[in-house]
Amino acid sequence: MQAWKEYQDQNKDRFLDELLDLLRIPSVSADSKYKGDVARCADAVKEHLMKAGCDSAEVCPTAGHPIVFGQKIVDPSLPTVLVYGHYDVQPADPINLWTSGPFEPVIRDGKIFARGACDDKGQMFMHIKALEVMAKTNTLPCNVKIMIEGEEEVGSSNLGKFLEDNKEKLKSDIVLVSDTSMISMEHPSIESGLRGLAYMEVEVTGPNRDLHSGVYGGAVANPINILCKMIASMHDENNHITIPGFYEKVQELTDAEKKALNNAPFDLKEYADELGVKETWGEKGYSTLERTGTRPTLDVNGIWGGYTGEGAKTVLPSKAFAKISMRLVPNQTSDEISNLFKAHFEKIAPANVQVKVTAHHGGEPVVTPTNSHAYKAAEKAIQTTFGKDPIPTRGGGSIPIIALFEKTLGLKTVLLGFGLDNDNIHSPNEKYDVANYFKGIETIPYFHKFFAEKE
Amino acid sequence: MQAWKEYQDQNKDRFLDELLDLLRIPSVSADSKYKGDVARCADAVKEHLMKAGCDSAEVCPTAGHPIVFGQKIVDPSLPTVLVYGHYDVQPADPINLWTSGPFEPVIRDGKIFARGACDDKGQMFMHIKALEVMAKTNTLPCNVKIMIEGEEEVGSSNLGKFLEDNKEKLKSDIVLVSDTSMISMEHPSIESGLRGLAYMEVEVTGPNRDLHSGVYGGAVANPINILCKMIASMHDENNHITIPGFYEKVQELTDAEKKALNNAPFDLKEYADELGVKETWGEKGYSTLERTGTRPTLDVNGIWGGYTGEGAKTVLPSKAFAKISMRLVPNQTSDEISNLFKAHFEKIAPANVQVKVTAHHGGEPVVTPTNSHAYKAAEKAIQTTFGKDPIPTRGGGSIPIIALFEKTLGLKTVLLGFGLDNDNIHSPNEKYDVANYFKGIETIPYFHKFFAEKE
Repeated sequence: MQAWKEYQDQNKDRFLDELLDLLRIPSVSADSKYKGDVARCADAVKEHLMKAGCDSAEVCPTAGHPIVFGQKIVDPSLPTVLVYGHYDVQPADPINLWTSGPFEPVIRDGKIFARGACDDKGQMFMHIKALEVMAKTNTLPCNVKIMIEGEEEVGSSNLGKFLEDNKEKLKSDIVLVSDTSMISMEHPSIESGLRGLAYMEVEVTGPNRDLHSGVYGGAVANPINILCKMIASMHDENNHITIPGFYEKVQELTDAEKKALNNAPFDLKEYADELGVKETWGEKGYSTLERTGTRPTLDVNGIWGGYTGEGAKTVLPSKAFAKISMRLVPNQTSDEISNLFKAHFEKIAPANVQVKVTAHHGGEPVVTPTNSHAYKAAEKAIQTTFGKDPIPTRGGGSIPIIALFEKTLGLKTVLLGFGLDNDNIHSPNEKYDVANYFKGIETIPYFHKFFAEKE
Repeated sequence: MQAWKEYQDQNKDRFLDELLDLLRIPSVSADSKYKGDVARCADAVKEHLMKAGCDSAEVCPTAGHPIVFGQKIVDPSLPTVLVYGHYDVQPADPINLWTSGPFEPVIRDGKIFARGACDDKGQMFMHIKALEVMAKTNTLPCNVKIMIEGEEEVGSSNLGKFLEDNKEKLKSDIVLVSDTSMISMEHPSIESGLRGLAYMEVEVTGPNRDLHSGVYGGAVANPINILCKMIASMHDENNHITIPGFYEKVQELTDAEKKALNNAPFDLKEYADELGVKETWGEKGYSTLERTGTRPTLDVNGIWGGYTGEGAKTVLPSKAFAKISMRLVPNQTSDEISNLFKAHFEKIAPANVQVKVTAHHGGEPVVTPTNSHAYKAAEKAIQTTFGKDPIPTRGGGSIPIIALFEKTLGLKTVLLGFGLDNDNIHSPNEKYDVANYFKGIETIPYFHKFFAEKE
């Protein structure tokens, strides 16, 4: 489609500037002090949807951060694509490790550096620009609905209700999401599965107040030492997770699936070098690709307790805390695993401490069928713009919402991601390659084209 | 000595007000942002020394916080007592757990609440007031030198050099220190021993940057999980410390010593209830009094890593940190144990992380002889003002300087402490009983009197 290419080329600079402006808004959903910025970001997204050619666009309030919804209906008899993305971002700390300000986007060697550059503002915005390309050239091959939420990074806790309340408005034939990564520009890939998430916070209390570690050291259990012992006990010598029943519903891959997965181009040494580790680590008996894509894991995301300031304080603290999350795979459910964790953690706590376990948000694992018309449309779109067959992969991350779409709207999802594993999402110096941004804008219209064509 | 009693009674209110003023100065030595307040506190102490009747007093600069020194020489042929104390205090955090401001002293039910009320401003100031009582009533039975430092809470790192450089000026017959506690006003006691300290800080580095726990969970070692495993491994199932060679030089108490120690009035249930724990905890095979007074321990004083803010962040962090200190007993030395810890910690670190171990300040354990003339003078002073024989105990805390006095000045030390174990030193709501403050001022002159008398 020559018209698409021309329009994109003529508007390249503006497409980039508009994204940079969006990245300047610190829409951190996890931290209440950014509430106003999150709202500001929602308004900006709505404006962009209208400018892109939507018939209508609105900022829909929720119990938490708002959801932005817009649509362009060219012909009710045509298929409808529901695009999902999120405008909220992860917290930026540790700030001091950023080379440039997390909310002062800069372009260095063809990469856009900013919090949210890839996850998910950069990828979400490709769809708004792709819509503009199709709308302004009057070549939209199907109806498009776009739903951009502001709570993905905190568990999409209000999206479920929004879907329930707006089934009619959201009625579509497929969900299209760009919030994942591909192997490389040379090896485009499509994620056919995602892991789920159970995220817990634990509090261990020893004595009823902070004590002098000299006067009381050796008299009472130190909650930090105890917490460390409890966390250490959650992996055995083979790095299997020791929570009873944790693996019960986990499906092993078929040999064919294992083979396909491990055939993906992957250089273990290069991978380890890029991360600065001597060797990778994980559950015995599985390859790194298998472990990150198809096996559940348990990681401490944060730990704190006692004196963490400058110098030395000889305190025997009253409390210790940790944030611990588990990545889940098909047939594990977030609630079930959260309950198993809670029961186990309470059970292994020694009598001389008290523990409190609370669950943060969770998400369910999903697998998207590679033999569907929608998946094939994505495949063809990649073939068209990359000149290569995409490799089906399994993603380690979670997009809790995908399982919700199926449950609430009865819709399958295609994960057409253009990120790269080294984009530092959730880390300092998050980036998104300018080339990937434009390649996405170029590829997305072809998905609509091929999806709109009869099966 | 009637004159002492009368003078103290006539000046009670002022003695209290002056202490409260001193407690209003946030002289936190561990935190550089209080540097100015620490200096201000040193000046205040010097002023008080002059007002108390010293011939001379000075603020002596060091590479760190200054040392205040003053003296009153009544007759060079008389014995000389060197009083040691410190005007610096522990950090006040966690601030939110204080009922009233840590540096806004208030008196509630006969207790002075403020950081430093007991450790050590309240106890140190008793000596300045006791000197005033003796000086103003022209009844000073011996020469008095007073040295008040500002770095006790951060390891007295510049005091060693000060002693070396001022041996002549500090020439004395005994060191007298009030920086410890007694069992109760009903059961006065004198600490005959103190534990030493080795304080380490460790850093564990996994990947070279914070990672997304979904994309990388199961691929690389999580430094927090690894740190927890390493810390957990440092105690075995009997809560013995597993560092090779750690106990090598530890002396077991004689049966007689054990008996004397365990004869001290001590109600284990009351003790546990007061701390809010179901049961005490520690090394198997030793009583709680033995463990806190005569056995070495290892406690994590602080731990941090990953995301510790509001909400949930799915990060697999690059680094994890901990502050870990060990209490030492006679014949263990701080340097030796620090080196054993470092070697062990580096040895048990798995190949997929890097560790960095640094030593903060340390201190040597000490035992003070109960058969010396000086100890007996303290005993008689207590008998005079309490009407009871003091019980010799072993303190769990460390005053690194005590060992230095012996090494550098060849002086023994008497620990005439008036604190109580429930004074919450190093904790929120630190307090010091008004009664103990005045009892100390009343008792100290008698120590000087009995010490000045021929053996």
